[in-house]
Amino acid sequence: MAVKTAASQRARRAGSAAAEAGALGGRADHKWVYRFDEGGQEMRALLGGKGAGVAEMTRAGLPVPPGFTITTEACIAYLANRGTFPAGMWVQVEAHLAGLEAAAGRRLGDPADPLLVSVRSGAAFSMPGMMDTVLNLGLTPETLEGLAARTGDRRFALDAYRRFIQLFGKIVLGLDPEPFDLALEAAKRRARAKTDADLPVPALEGLVAEFRTLVHRGSGRPFPDDPREQLRTAIGAVFGSWNGRRAIAYREYNRIAHDLGTAVNVQMMVFGNMGQTSGTGVAFTRDPSTGQRHLYGEYLLNAQGEDVVAGIRTPQPISALKRAMPEVYREFERIAQRLEAHYRDVQDMEFTIERGRLFMLQTRTAKRTAAAAVRIAMDMLSEQTLSREEALQRVEPEQVDQLLHRAIDPSARVQVLATGLAASPGAATGQAVFDADRAQALAAAGTAVILVRVETNPDDVHGMIAAEGVLTARGGRTSHAAVVARGMGKPCVAGAEEVAVDLRRRRFVAGGVTVREGEVFTIDGSTGRVIAGRVATVEPSVSGDLRRLLGLADQVRRLRVFTNADTPEDARRARQFGAQGVGLCRTEHMFMEADRLPHVQAMILADTVEERQRQLAKLLPFQRQDFIGILEAMAGLPVIIRLIDPPLHEFLPNHDDLLVEVTRLRERHGAPRRLERAERMLAAVERLREQNPMLGLRGCRLGLLFPEIIAMQARAIAEATATLRQRRVRAMPEIMVPLVGHVEELRRSRQLIESTLHDVAREQGVRLPIKIGTMIEVPRAALTAAAIAQVADFFSFGTNDLTQTVFAVSRDDAEGKFLNRYVAEGILAANPFEHLDADGVGRLMGIAVAEGRQARPDLELGICGEHGGDGPSIAICEQLGLDYVSCSPFRVPGARLAAAQARIAGPRGSTA
Amino acid sequence: MAVKTAASQRARRAGSAAAEAGALGGRADHKWVYRFDEGGQEMRALLGGKGAGVAEMTRAGLPVPPGFTITTEACIAYLANRGTFPAGMWVQVEAHLAGLEAAAGRRLGDPADPLLVSVRSGAAFSMPGMMDTVLNLGLTPETLEGLAARTGDRRFALDAYRRFIQLFGKIVLGLDPEPFDLALEAAKRRARAKTDADLPVPALEGLVAEFRTLVHRGSGRPFPDDPREQLRTAIGAVFGSWNGRRAIAYREYNRIAHDLGTAVNVQMMVFGNMGQTSGTGVAFTRDPSTGQRHLYGEYLLNAQGEDVVAGIRTPQPISALKRAMPEVYREFERIAQRLEAHYRDVQDMEFTIERGRLFMLQTRTAKRTAAAAVRIAMDMLSEQTLSREEALQRVEPEQVDQLLHRAIDPSARVQVLATGLAASPGAATGQAVFDADRAQALAAAGTAVILVRVETNPDDVHGMIAAEGVLTARGGRTSHAAVVARGMGKPCVAGAEEVAVDLRRRRFVAGGVTVREGEVFTIDGSTGRVIAGRVATVEPSVSGDLRRLLGLADQVRRLRVFTNADTPEDARRARQFGAQGVGLCRTEHMFMEADRLPHVQAMILADTVEERQRQLAKLLPFQRQDFIGILEAMAGLPVIIRLIDPPLHEFLPNHDDLLVEVTRLRERHGAPRRLERAERMLAAVERLREQNPMLGLRGCRLGLLFPEIIAMQARAIAEATATLRQRRVRAMPEIMVPLVGHVEELRRSRQLIESTLHDVAREQGVRLPIKIGTMIEVPRAALTAAAIAQVADFFSFGTNDLTQTVFAVSRDDAEGKFLNRYVAEGILAANPFEHLDADGVGRLMGIAVAEGRQARPDLELGICGEHGGDGPSIAICEQLGLDYVSCSPFRVPGARLAAAQARIAGPRGSTA
Repeated sequence: MAVKTAASQRARRAGSAAAEAGALGGRADHKWVYRFDEGGQEMRALLGGKGAGVAEMTRAGLPVPPGFTITTEACIAYLANRGTFPAGMWVQVEAHLAGLEAAAGRRLGDPADPLLVSVRSGAAFSMPGMMDTVLNLGLTPETLEGLAARTGDRRFALDAYRRFIQLFGKIVLGLDPEPFDLALEAAKRRARAKTDADLPVPALEGLVAEFRTLVHRGSGRPFPDDPREQLRTAIGAVFGSWNGRRAIAYREYNRIAHDLGTAVNVQMMVFGNMGQTSGTGVAFTRDPSTGQRHLYGEYLLNAQGEDVVAGIRTPQPISALKRAMPEVYREFERIAQRLEAHYRDVQDMEFTIERGRLFMLQTRTAKRTAAAAVRIAMDMLSEQTLSREEALQRVEPEQVDQLLHRAIDPSARVQVLATGLAASPGAATGQAVFDADRAQALAAAGTAVILVRVETNPDDVHGMIAAEGVLTARGGRTSHAAVVARGMGKPCVAGAEEVAVDLRRRRFVAGGVTVREGEVFTIDGSTGRVIAGRVATVEPSVSGDLRRLLGLADQVRRLRVFTNADTPEDARRARQFGAQGVGLCRTEHMFMEADRLPHVQAMILADTVEERQRQLAKLLPFQRQDFIGILEAMAGLPVIIRLIDPPLHEFLPNHDDLLVEVTRLRERHGAPRRLERAERMLAAVERLREQNPMLGLRGCRLGLLFPEIIAMQARAIAEATATLRQRRVRAMPEIMVPLVGHVEELRRSRQLIESTLHDVAREQGVRLPIKIGTMIEVPRAALTAAAIAQVADFFSFGTNDLTQTVFAVSRDDAEGKFLNRYVAEGILAANPFEHLDADGVGRLMGIAVAEGRQARPDLELGICGEHGGDGPSIAICEQLGLDYVSCSPFRVPGARLAAAQARIAGPRGSTA
Repeated sequence: MAVKTAASQRARRAGSAAAEAGALGGRADHKWVYRFDEGGQEMRALLGGKGAGVAEMTRAGLPVPPGFTITTEACIAYLANRGTFPAGMWVQVEAHLAGLEAAAGRRLGDPADPLLVSVRSGAAFSMPGMMDTVLNLGLTPETLEGLAARTGDRRFALDAYRRFIQLFGKIVLGLDPEPFDLALEAAKRRARAKTDADLPVPALEGLVAEFRTLVHRGSGRPFPDDPREQLRTAIGAVFGSWNGRRAIAYREYNRIAHDLGTAVNVQMMVFGNMGQTSGTGVAFTRDPSTGQRHLYGEYLLNAQGEDVVAGIRTPQPISALKRAMPEVYREFERIAQRLEAHYRDVQDMEFTIERGRLFMLQTRTAKRTAAAAVRIAMDMLSEQTLSREEALQRVEPEQVDQLLHRAIDPSARVQVLATGLAASPGAATGQAVFDADRAQALAAAGTAVILVRVETNPDDVHGMIAAEGVLTARGGRTSHAAVVARGMGKPCVAGAEEVAVDLRRRRFVAGGVTVREGEVFTIDGSTGRVIAGRVATVEPSVSGDLRRLLGLADQVRRLRVFTNADTPEDARRARQFGAQGVGLCRTEHMFMEADRLPHVQAMILADTVEERQRQLAKLLPFQRQDFIGILEAMAGLPVIIRLIDPPLHEFLPNHDDLLVEVTRLRERHGAPRRLERAERMLAAVERLREQNPMLGLRGCRLGLLFPEIIAMQARAIAEATATLRQRRVRAMPEIMVPLVGHVEELRRSRQLIESTLHDVAREQGVRLPIKIGTMIEVPRAALTAAAIAQVADFFSFGTNDLTQTVFAVSRDDAEGKFLNRYVAEGILAANPFEHLDADGVGRLMGIAVAEGRQARPDLELGICGEHGGDGPSIAICEQLGLDYVSCSPFRVPGARLAAAQARIAGPRGSTA
């Protein structure tokens, strides 16, 4: 969201500047045209992205084919004048054309040695739907002969000519492309040519004639044989395409201002297919897979750019050019170094060699793998190309996440059955199982399984723990399956809608393949792929460079990074990953384990306080042991333990299953005692069932109605702390009360907790200075933060629930049903469960931060929602001045980096 | 909540003032004691409520038994000094006692003609748990004889003495009351006395001796026979009771500061039981039932206050006193007039006549019926006792509500089976029915029925429409049943938990009585009573006074009052009640009607847009007719129509019923086609079903996913308007988009609506300047109001949903499960669904109002939640500067009054 908003603001600024300039339309002395070497990156609004880029390369002294750019202002003036070039523009174009001819040593329309040019549109933002590229402009029946003569290759010249006519007809004149394609196909059939390149000269001559006729027939006018008229028409068409339907729709959709206009670039054509001293290629200044520092790429001799892509011939590695054309190679190497130094980043370059002469066509910052990004950043820091802060900004936090997971071997051939959401990274292979109990049983027997469900709920957690990975057909990146799996660091593909899960028959069908229970398949949670069979995987390589990068991040960042961990294993893992505490230790998963659930259920179904307390007394030792484990794993670091949060019916059997069972047993009249038991349980579940459990009896509300539950949990925490004290382990628990909306809820919860802590302290003869704080996850809590801060030692923003209530959107319901469509259709710029919503949720957090801190200056502030591991959200947390972010263990390293980046961006970053 | 907050702030202010004064504890020259005629109402903090009240009466020149008040400051000093009276206090008490003796013409402890006094506590706030009253202080074995001699009634004197010992022992010395009660019972048994009054002199003498022994044994010291010691002990005990357990608990609970202290009142005893020239009584300055202007009350000769209450003898009407004691009556009449004039309100007075001398013991503002309140206010305005503004403030808006409903005849004897919540006022009698279909069928056949459900949901609405009233066993005052019934102006008792509803056997059991389907019973929605059989009712009397009152309210108020109405009948009724527009016309109830539901369901289940449009086309004429009806009923006034809001599955059959049906059919293997149909419907319902429908696919989200639904509704509205234009009816629809959270949702909805309106305008050749606005019911909408206001012509606060999301509380789930307990236990001061929460929801509304208006100064602002008919909530709306409130038709008159009161209270009213 931040990016788009910033971009759109830039667009508006640029737009209004351009609009002002548009008023200059009538002034002939205004400068409408720039030579490439007159521009640069900073003139993007005026010259468009392409024009600015090519100007920058020219200015860097690179061998770029010469040319010039007609400004966006000219476009605006043209459109305002209803299709008339602004006064003075054409004169300037003519003058620049003359300069270009001088630089090229050829003239446009010269029958002996014609200059050919390309004409390209280029707005400030890359924009589909606008006129793209016309190549070979300047060809006419006369200049064709000159080109043929000069190149000594009539076939080449004819092919260039027919391509030009075709493109000009389709793009400039807006003709239906189909007759051209049909004519080409027919010609190939007649000539028995496999590819376009196999067409012989006579066939091409016929095709040129046919294309000229098609243009005449389609446009009502003969094909223009005056190169200047070609150029004038093409420029007008580029300008006009700014107001084309698709371009307008695209701008509407992306909220780009309509008054920006597009520039037009006119550039000399160069040809890589003029024999064995010509060629074309692409190369990177460093290896984009590994980050290693050497030229990496490939080229083809006697070929055009599209031939490399088409894959008809196998290109040579760039190193072969060293032998083939040593001087060209040396020059290219020098240019590559200069480009990298100029842009201070790895470049992805396109080049053409025309008869031994090297031309640079394009350079851009290279995309790279996560591993390469880390290595490149660290190498460039060592090379003193980048400062520490710059190096830190060269790696995306998500790339760090990716590095910490097992991946599908990139060289393996795979059969993709379906693609869902990349919900939790990493690859997993195992037998398909369709319910959690079976997953647990098989895993206990040592079988690797993948749990397949339509969607998961808390009843499935034990199965998720047992499984290697999770596949769901429904739900988004923040569905239960995704959130829990990410928390466990377990691969998950969620919302794979093409996967038809048939729970009754215990199988799924996807991509025409049926996978039955027990059959092995693979998921790739990093890409969302569901893959047939077993696939080779590669171990994550946490290289020394990553460690160095994160060490630098730690030096820079202000935000501490905590983890969300419910088990000692999670806590230990997170600690290895650099977690500085546990920001959220949920206690309800502990209740779900098989040896406790019966007591939990009996406690819930208890009719009297005494019976409830009896069951809680049985749970106490379990909870104490849980807390001893996690507090020991985090010895010396704070562990924020959240008291029980979910509605109680989550611990009871599924309602619909019970209803079906009761109905069946009633129909069968066979098992009166079983029926009675089932009916009793059904009645209990129906009593506890809620229409909107998310807004129901849960969180601190539970504890206020059943104080004995809170008391048991507080006692377990206190006793665990006392036990560890005796072992000289520095346990630092803090107690967090969930779902507080009114200060009185926290005050009473706090009294209850403190009284239990005092009891234990007295019993054990120790001091137990345990902080007590609250989640801020209910809007009312944020709105009344000043009051709440008076009884809270800390606030922890539960931004999952806060987002749900601020938007009035239930995450689980919404993602599949409308949230994804909202994002796809641009109603929302991003899924607010992935990236914190600055305007709504962020604003509310800001109120709570300001008023909470004012009421209590030492109030500790953190975030423990899923957003705590998300880069853009961490940037908002930095701006809000929180003390820490907390996220799942595997996201801790990425969060460390993101926190450093947020710090570098400063308090008034891009999202402000 | 506002009230409590304000009270508690006052308490704190008073408390800190008192605390400062407490520091004066050592200063003997400080004034610790006030004669009654030195004080007044404004000295409540210092003299306590009781002391200030009796001072006010004394100051008004009434014959109040003389006395003095020891200040709350003295109490604080006493407690700070660990139980020592502050220096100078006792000296001042002695001096005031001497003054009292002079005024009374008797001396404390005088064996011949003793002065007796009462000692009463009196804090600034009435507070249970504190020492209350000790009567007859000053009696000793010696003064007993004097009293007996003076009154000539030894029995009376002995009875007074034994009462004094009993009270002193129990209250001042804190002894167990049980032995005293047992001794009294035993004495009565022995003397064969039916009541205490029947005890003969010897028995009383024995009892006095026994009581003295009980005190000695219980306290370890003999009963004090020095009246000054009695007084000193009693004063200390009153002071000490401030820190009693129950008093502290009460203050904790009510958040009253602990440092306020209590005052002590010492007052001369007077006796109404000194023969036939003595008596006691209570009277009102006007009839509290009708408001008629004449003395109204009753008295008993030769009796004490408690005899009137005990009902042993039948009291005489106050008019009889005119004949019995004409001078006393005249004096009382004069006093009554003076009191009413002094307090400028009807007074409820207690008096005692001691041997022909009239004493006023207490006066307070009289409680009165709704009808009396209205009449008194209008009469006192006519009498020029009250200004228009004051008269308007003398009637509660709820009293106006009450006047508009049929009521149980107050003289009827009724058998109350259970008491639930008074959810929608009025009485109804009818046959019990247990499902909506049967209710509809019976009602269609002319039978009056009451719909009995555990709770209702939208499926029951047609049954509610058909029924005379609704009874539910679950749910609160703002449950579905309550809200819908109130909207319909239909009596409803909700959440009657003692009513055990057995839907299968079609009966309910309550109060030991079983009511089967078809049996007649009665509900009283004004009191919450469920009553056996048929009961006589009385018609509401909308008197001329009420009309006059509301007319005055209309002159004063700034807020307009709209109504929530879905049907022409509702709209017409509300218009008669003074509604100035429709603030919320829900369109979904229209979808629920029997002739439309099949099309609605087919529309929902449609697989293609075309099929959906086909079904919508069938619904269009229905909707158009609906809108013609309501727009015609409100001709000339605005009608804000909300587009479809509820989740679609609300229109489909109940999920659990379907699941049971499918399971049964599967077990029976008998009806494959029925099974298939049921399975298909079940699958559809499961697809649409949501975990938290309140936060799911509803409101504008529906319209953005299925634009054809919005288009149909907009077309229906536009065509209805055009049709009425042709009939020269001034239709003024406005279109409201529900559940907007992001400006983009509203922008796109608006585009869609506008384009439909344009289409219809073009087709029909009319102008359709229809305003388009939005509900503000999602926190994010309020937080981003500035952006949303740019595409909204109006905001309407949907405070039901806003309260749900701001609190993260689902109304339907919460009321029965924890919200009622929250209120009962004081965690929340009020149910936020009944009274708008100023701190959370109100604050958020304030943000939206300020930023919305700033962005768009002509933005129209209103509220359409249930709060729109609630007095305290209307006060908040006035402070927020809204333009109108909207409520159900029957609450419109009350809202008119509340709006006037809010205006009078001004922008900085009690809730600020």
